[in-house]
Amino acid sequence: MACEGGMRRGILLILCVALGFPALCGGEKPGGPKEVLARCAAAGLRDGNAYRMLEELTSRAPSRLSGSPGADTALRVARELLLRAGADSVWMEPVLVPHWVRGSVERALVTPFLDRRAPFSIAVCALGGSVATPPRGVTAEVAEVHSFDELRALGDRAKGRIIFFNRPMDPALLSTFEAYGRAVDQRSRGAVEAARAGAVGVLVRSMTLARDNVPHTGALSYVDSVRKIPAAAVGIQDAEKLSALVRRDPRTRVTLTLDCRTRPDVPSANVIGEIRGSERPREIILVGGHLDCWDKGTGAHDDASGCIQAIEVLHLFRQLGIVPRRTIRAVMFMNEENGSRGGHAYASAPLRDEEKHIAAIESDRGGFAPRGFTVQADSATLAWFLRWKPLFEDVAAGRIIAGSGGVDVSPIVAKGAIGVGLDVADYRYFDFHHSANDVAAGVNPRELEMGAVVTAFLCYLLSEEWPPL
Amino acid sequence: MACEGGMRRGILLILCVALGFPALCGGEKPGGPKEVLARCAAAGLRDGNAYRMLEELTSRAPSRLSGSPGADTALRVARELLLRAGADSVWMEPVLVPHWVRGSVERALVTPFLDRRAPFSIAVCALGGSVATPPRGVTAEVAEVHSFDELRALGDRAKGRIIFFNRPMDPALLSTFEAYGRAVDQRSRGAVEAARAGAVGVLVRSMTLARDNVPHTGALSYVDSVRKIPAAAVGIQDAEKLSALVRRDPRTRVTLTLDCRTRPDVPSANVIGEIRGSERPREIILVGGHLDCWDKGTGAHDDASGCIQAIEVLHLFRQLGIVPRRTIRAVMFMNEENGSRGGHAYASAPLRDEEKHIAAIESDRGGFAPRGFTVQADSATLAWFLRWKPLFEDVAAGRIIAGSGGVDVSPIVAKGAIGVGLDVADYRYFDFHHSANDVAAGVNPRELEMGAVVTAFLCYLLSEEWPPL
Repeated sequence: MACEGGMRRGILLILCVALGFPALCGGEKPGGPKEVLARCAAAGLRDGNAYRMLEELTSRAPSRLSGSPGADTALRVARELLLRAGADSVWMEPVLVPHWVRGSVERALVTPFLDRRAPFSIAVCALGGSVATPPRGVTAEVAEVHSFDELRALGDRAKGRIIFFNRPMDPALLSTFEAYGRAVDQRSRGAVEAARAGAVGVLVRSMTLARDNVPHTGALSYVDSVRKIPAAAVGIQDAEKLSALVRRDPRTRVTLTLDCRTRPDVPSANVIGEIRGSERPREIILVGGHLDCWDKGTGAHDDASGCIQAIEVLHLFRQLGIVPRRTIRAVMFMNEENGSRGGHAYASAPLRDEEKHIAAIESDRGGFAPRGFTVQADSATLAWFLRWKPLFEDVAAGRIIAGSGGVDVSPIVAKGAIGVGLDVADYRYFDFHHSANDVAAGVNPRELEMGAVVTAFLCYLLSEEWPPL
Repeated sequence: MACEGGMRRGILLILCVALGFPALCGGEKPGGPKEVLARCAAAGLRDGNAYRMLEELTSRAPSRLSGSPGADTALRVARELLLRAGADSVWMEPVLVPHWVRGSVERALVTPFLDRRAPFSIAVCALGGSVATPPRGVTAEVAEVHSFDELRALGDRAKGRIIFFNRPMDPALLSTFEAYGRAVDQRSRGAVEAARAGAVGVLVRSMTLARDNVPHTGALSYVDSVRKIPAAAVGIQDAEKLSALVRRDPRTRVTLTLDCRTRPDVPSANVIGEIRGSERPREIILVGGHLDCWDKGTGAHDDASGCIQAIEVLHLFRQLGIVPRRTIRAVMFMNEENGSRGGHAYASAPLRDEEKHIAAIESDRGGFAPRGFTVQADSATLAWFLRWKPLFEDVAAGRIIAGSGGVDVSPIVAKGAIGVGLDVADYRYFDFHHSANDVAAGVNPRELEMGAVVTAFLCYLLSEEWPPL
């Protein structure tokens, strides 16, 4: 909400000339796009700035779920990082966000019926948005299903049970996002469907392709007309163990205990910083990620990486002394994970009426090796992007294909901006996603940085070469 | 040397028909390349076979330096894996290899001169091929240099010193292989140049872009006319510590103690398995990696990954019921790391006179996300490969550029084969390379597998579509 920082262009211009980059100052054309890209890559890779920022954000604000104290800290850290990167101005725009709290208890105790083994715990975590169980938990027999059809086929046998959704992400699919998309209905709609069938609780196999036992959280949805029942994710090793047990011993019982709860909405913000365009300041090239994250791990890939890359884009423009003709704006959206309120608030904020968004680039697929961009636009626009393909191929990021920009930018894309998603080698993404695995040590500094570099270069092309200029 | 396995084509043909893949049996054309690639990816990603093989090789034969007992074990494991993958025949071809042994002592003790701090150890490991020090070590003052020019400029000040080569790999270069190539002269030729200058020992900053303190080994070369002095790699955190100390306190001394030694050459082998071509069995599509590795870590990326991918290529052909028109041959070369004798022995083996090698594909850049191929051939051949680019782009591996095939295949490429190197996202390679970090846990199963999938598909194209057929 506060507007900070000042115009540094004068000083920068002097610095540029002094440092021997006169061609890149003011409105002058630099040597050419290839040279800009090469200098951008060298500058970004040389000093490790992006990774240092990632470490700072994820250590000062490790837990950034919407409405949490950590999310408030993250607003301040993001503001500081934007100022340090050299933004002309940094401000916040208000967003009212949901406030779900995990609480301190999340436990699932398995009690076999046939063999009188002692009860044992399995690795679980509450799904985001879940209601709590009673303090002593919900105890019921387990019914395993792999789809909503299977659930419905249970009929009365679902009643009073804990439904265990255990359909894995399909490893045979090359796109891990596609595999996720085809499995995640169990997590997002499982509680509603199970409640409709008369169940008292839900366990969901974690959405991951890793082989460890770390549970992966993520949002569920309730609907007002259906009773809200508690739901938790299970680590996949334990999901397989439970599955084998239930097949042998169908009267196995689970006691699920969660004390999470939803509190009233709280005020929060999107954090925004920009370098104003020298010729068309009201034409915006937006680059962003989401500042909030799930409360397991530190959200390093999801999506501190996207935020840091957006900030690093501004930093790279400053470092190279490029004054863009259009405005380059970094946006850290709040509340992507459980409400997407930041993206909607941004698109409908009063300031937007005075601006024209040329493009909105989102990085929310992890800080992995960049390989290109997905472009959400008409075919003529995609064709224009494809003219740039050879430039990006030089840095192994020439995969330019039709595809979504992303969740946070979709409201502004709906208002006419070109949507762009940073495409990365996503093989490992769901090893980290929404889990305790997602920490800075899992991000490679060079992969993170090159994502910022190719994004900065795309911003440069959109600012300097996009028609009509 | 032994020829094993038998023709399984008959059984396979029956199985194929029974399983409803008649179009892929015998010499018939399958539905088309796109379908083959899609089925290949699905089959490979579904069952995790490549990673299981990687775990087996790196656990049964974790230490595979040429001439070692572990390398002998690796020959047997590779043979078993080839047979299990469904090779028609598996054999070994003899290679006489060098036998360097690390010994049990590698230590560097730093003794400051000015401040009377206690001596302290730094993380070092002997460079491959180094001579030993005397049992009580070599003690000398340290002279830090960053190039051979700086070394020569030392003049008499190099005499009796331990030369400390401390030029980092340049992080500003996008290609980590290029950064390596520009720094590795310090490791490979440092001992010779230092001895010429009168030095008594060498320390070399590890060849890595990681920020840890793990020393990275690798081969050095001696020349007969110059005294052989001992040489070790230093972890980069300790390299920076030593550098700061020596700048403050130039009379700092180091005691370097190594008991490594070179023993007489020993007989070893390349391990070879193939699926014979149905129409042109003497025309070979070779795919390979190297079976030997440095004795730190388990050589998971370098180059168990390449070996396993070669074996997995055969497995994928079998799994999909594709009987190739030309022979697909997997070769596990011995002794890439410190002699390249396997590659030379392969190219000059008597059997080669009866064969024609169409192409030789090498995977030796780590088991990372594949992004395409480097092609070592004339421009007409490269143009032919580029016709296949859109197919590979569908699986994000469309980066087909001119470049080297690799060290092991270069002798057969010199005899006329097209050289092909599997190109991967190499950002993280030198975090692992030649160090204790290089273990199976650092390889992602899906990235490894997709390297095998795109390689298998290229073999398919070369077997089925390459002119003149």
